[in-house]
Amino acid sequence: MMPYALTLAAILERAERWFPNVELASRERRSNYAGFAARARRLAWALHAAGLQPGDRVATLLWNDLNHLEAYFGVPLAGGVVHPLNLRQHPRQWTEILRQAADRFALVDERLLDRCRGLLPEHGIVVPGGYEELIAQATPHDLPALKEEDGAAMGYTSGTTGEPKGVLYTHRALCLHALAISLPDALNLRQQDCILSLVPMFHANAWGTPHAGALIGCKQVFVGARFDAESALDMLAGEQVTRSAGVPVIWQGILDALDRHPGRWKLHPDLRVNLGGAPAPMALFDRFDRHGITVNMGWGMTEMTPVGTMNPRLAGPQRTRQGRLLPFVEGRVDAAGELEVRGPWIADQYFAGTAPESFTADGWLRTGDVVAFDDEGLMEIVDRAKDIIRSGGETISSVALENALACHPAIREAAVIAVPHPKWQERPLACVVLREGAAADPDAWRVHLEVTFPKWQCPDDYRVLESLPRTATGKIDKRALRAAAAERYGTTTAAVCEKK
Amino acid sequence: MMPYALTLAAILERAERWFPNVELASRERRSNYAGFAARARRLAWALHAAGLQPGDRVATLLWNDLNHLEAYFGVPLAGGVVHPLNLRQHPRQWTEILRQAADRFALVDERLLDRCRGLLPEHGIVVPGGYEELIAQATPHDLPALKEEDGAAMGYTSGTTGEPKGVLYTHRALCLHALAISLPDALNLRQQDCILSLVPMFHANAWGTPHAGALIGCKQVFVGARFDAESALDMLAGEQVTRSAGVPVIWQGILDALDRHPGRWKLHPDLRVNLGGAPAPMALFDRFDRHGITVNMGWGMTEMTPVGTMNPRLAGPQRTRQGRLLPFVEGRVDAAGELEVRGPWIADQYFAGTAPESFTADGWLRTGDVVAFDDEGLMEIVDRAKDIIRSGGETISSVALENALACHPAIREAAVIAVPHPKWQERPLACVVLREGAAADPDAWRVHLEVTFPKWQCPDDYRVLESLPRTATGKIDKRALRAAAAERYGTTTAAVCEKK
Repeated sequence: MMPYALTLAAILERAERWFPNVELASRERRSNYAGFAARARRLAWALHAAGLQPGDRVATLLWNDLNHLEAYFGVPLAGGVVHPLNLRQHPRQWTEILRQAADRFALVDERLLDRCRGLLPEHGIVVPGGYEELIAQATPHDLPALKEEDGAAMGYTSGTTGEPKGVLYTHRALCLHALAISLPDALNLRQQDCILSLVPMFHANAWGTPHAGALIGCKQVFVGARFDAESALDMLAGEQVTRSAGVPVIWQGILDALDRHPGRWKLHPDLRVNLGGAPAPMALFDRFDRHGITVNMGWGMTEMTPVGTMNPRLAGPQRTRQGRLLPFVEGRVDAAGELEVRGPWIADQYFAGTAPESFTADGWLRTGDVVAFDDEGLMEIVDRAKDIIRSGGETISSVALENALACHPAIREAAVIAVPHPKWQERPLACVVLREGAAADPDAWRVHLEVTFPKWQCPDDYRVLESLPRTATGKIDKRALRAAAAERYGTTTAAVCEKK
Repeated sequence: MMPYALTLAAILERAERWFPNVELASRERRSNYAGFAARARRLAWALHAAGLQPGDRVATLLWNDLNHLEAYFGVPLAGGVVHPLNLRQHPRQWTEILRQAADRFALVDERLLDRCRGLLPEHGIVVPGGYEELIAQATPHDLPALKEEDGAAMGYTSGTTGEPKGVLYTHRALCLHALAISLPDALNLRQQDCILSLVPMFHANAWGTPHAGALIGCKQVFVGARFDAESALDMLAGEQVTRSAGVPVIWQGILDALDRHPGRWKLHPDLRVNLGGAPAPMALFDRFDRHGITVNMGWGMTEMTPVGTMNPRLAGPQRTRQGRLLPFVEGRVDAAGELEVRGPWIADQYFAGTAPESFTADGWLRTGDVVAFDDEGLMEIVDRAKDIIRSGGETISSVALENALACHPAIREAAVIAVPHPKWQERPLACVVLREGAAADPDAWRVHLEVTFPKWQCPDDYRVLESLPRTATGKIDKRALRAAAAERYGTTTAAVCEKK
């Protein structure tokens, strides 16, 4: 068999050759794969001419737009590693990450310049001004040959403490991941689809749709810098999007807008939303149903390029599960119920060797998720290992309680955390956000839960909050909730409840 | 990223772990992936214990059944190369191929023993007797570690002259091919599908469905030794098959049986047939339509594992085309219109280095097919390079004439060949097989063709045959037709029309 390397260059050339007129669009401009490929290649020439060496990291501080897509492909085409910074993080965190990653170049949206003064590496390129100039001046020349094991992209996990944990993605990993997530039992991506991902491109390869879309040759649209539910809906309807993705909290906002404005947006009848990043309660699926939108649950990690499972069930009670391990992703469960994984698009170390304890001695990644598989191989996340509540020698799933609470009509969302208890070691505390106009009624919530949970598993107490604190990746920040609870419940330090 | 090898062992373990109860069935017995994997592993232990060395070829003389599936995985699991012999070939050809491949083992269906006396290698294992004994006696032990570049399977092209041309498939090629053919725009293979391939397992990995089915975890059924249209239909209906495959001539027979017995078989409403191996006329698609069966055109070669293109269009005039190059398959067209390809599941040489002229100096495979791509990238085979007719400095597509003739109500099938001509160099001759009860009427056929072809492209003459000669792979044997025509038209040798 031919020694053919799986690289992003092959994906780009395929899109350019066979899908030149397929549209790519952002709020600012419309293009197609021919235009995109030409500009990505010019970027590669320019970076290479400016001294980029194979393996050099190129930071991006960009939103979801066509320029970012060009960087996704153009940087690796030049032999470099595209390294999007999380725009929701504090510049202090950028400093630390830029130092560890040792980026030699940066592409920076001009609207972000104020926030990164003094942080940028040697070559700071301002988008659009400096970027357009760079591309215009690029001259064609040979680029370094790529091997499939070469680094192509890099992402950092959103951990808020300890050393930054960076993941280096190879061309091979991105290509195999693109194939696998496009399968019928995953995103079911067809050339005639139109993708609008609401996952930021600075998160874990935007869950892989930019690469998969180019591989399959389908239309892709980009939501731009900051967006709200209504502007996302304008684009979903205006471009007749058939595949979207995002975390549950983003989609809650979109469903709220659909509820507020019945009939305002005519969405494509085949619109299918890939939910991930956090478990979602059945109540959320029911809301999608009422608007005729199909939901496709999935699960992944920055360390997994990022998709690990996708749920092929689009209806019925099993659809809330995280789904089935993708082909070539292997999973096993340790004695504590935590999932360990291995596969061709899974990291076997962090950049610079930080946090080696995340990997087992025999080379599997510890996911930190306690999971259960049903008899059809569909995985359900019982809890994050560090969020599970240990009460009187038994465990209580915070996720299960949260999902049940979110089905109560008065509750918009809920987070359940462990608080220390002198007798039972830990007990669950529920933090809830009310729906507009609803009143707090803990007794009713208790009754609601006792339909499905034994009494000892139900929260001892409820706190009503205006909103739940979130991390830079949009996940509920249980660390912050535990800290607040520890204060209130009189323990001296939140660390009592931290289970590393 | 982890150094994870793409191997058939990974596919087998996935099927065993996650789809243990999914059914596998042949006419003789029913099993599931757990049972299959256990037996395939026992076969691997047995072969390894019997002295199989990494890379050793293991010939099979088996039909489409569960034992053959076990060999497909068990032989590579032991580090060997499974090498199915084409049961439609003459034992003389087997002798030559067995000598070149130097198979050390052979698994032989007992019904074929008479045909291969004296041909078999050192270790001849008779199926089922000797095979069951071998498997029963196998004892668990460590098998050699597999690398993805290791050989796993081998197939010979059906060329009737010259040295045999063998293709060695690596684990990597088979795995990537399995992913790619399962995509929505290809076979659209889902875990809930049921596959019954009518492609012999001794042909080019049975077009990849045994591997793809195990990867996706779907039910597979096997048609057994010799079968006819009615027994195939019994199985298609009885097992509620949703994915099938085969060459057009096989499906013509099945459609004939459906016409003869309206209402006798209740096929699954999602039944989708992957047609390949030869171009098919629109008339054949229309026949499928009348029976509510979806058709999915494709194209490939033994040298391509074998699938090169699949057509995502399931309706409309474009659906008769061969389709779009799969992801990571690259194509280019030479000056004579011949397609050249490269990619990770394409051979870069034949086994033992035969026929090196099939590969370009820069490492592409010459397909021998003259093709055209439409503006959506859908490929159409204009003709085999050696079958195209060169008349007065222009070219005439034999395939286009054949497809048009097959749409005439009196014609069952047609083959158009070049015959030498003193003035025009070559002229087309049509060989036709009549439908039952139809009469020969060349004038009517001429009128029928002149609706779509200029007069100079239409055949000068028509010959009515009882049937068309076919090669061992079921393709129309134009070499034989040209030889017969040369005799009749008085040229001294058929070689006049052979365009190597």
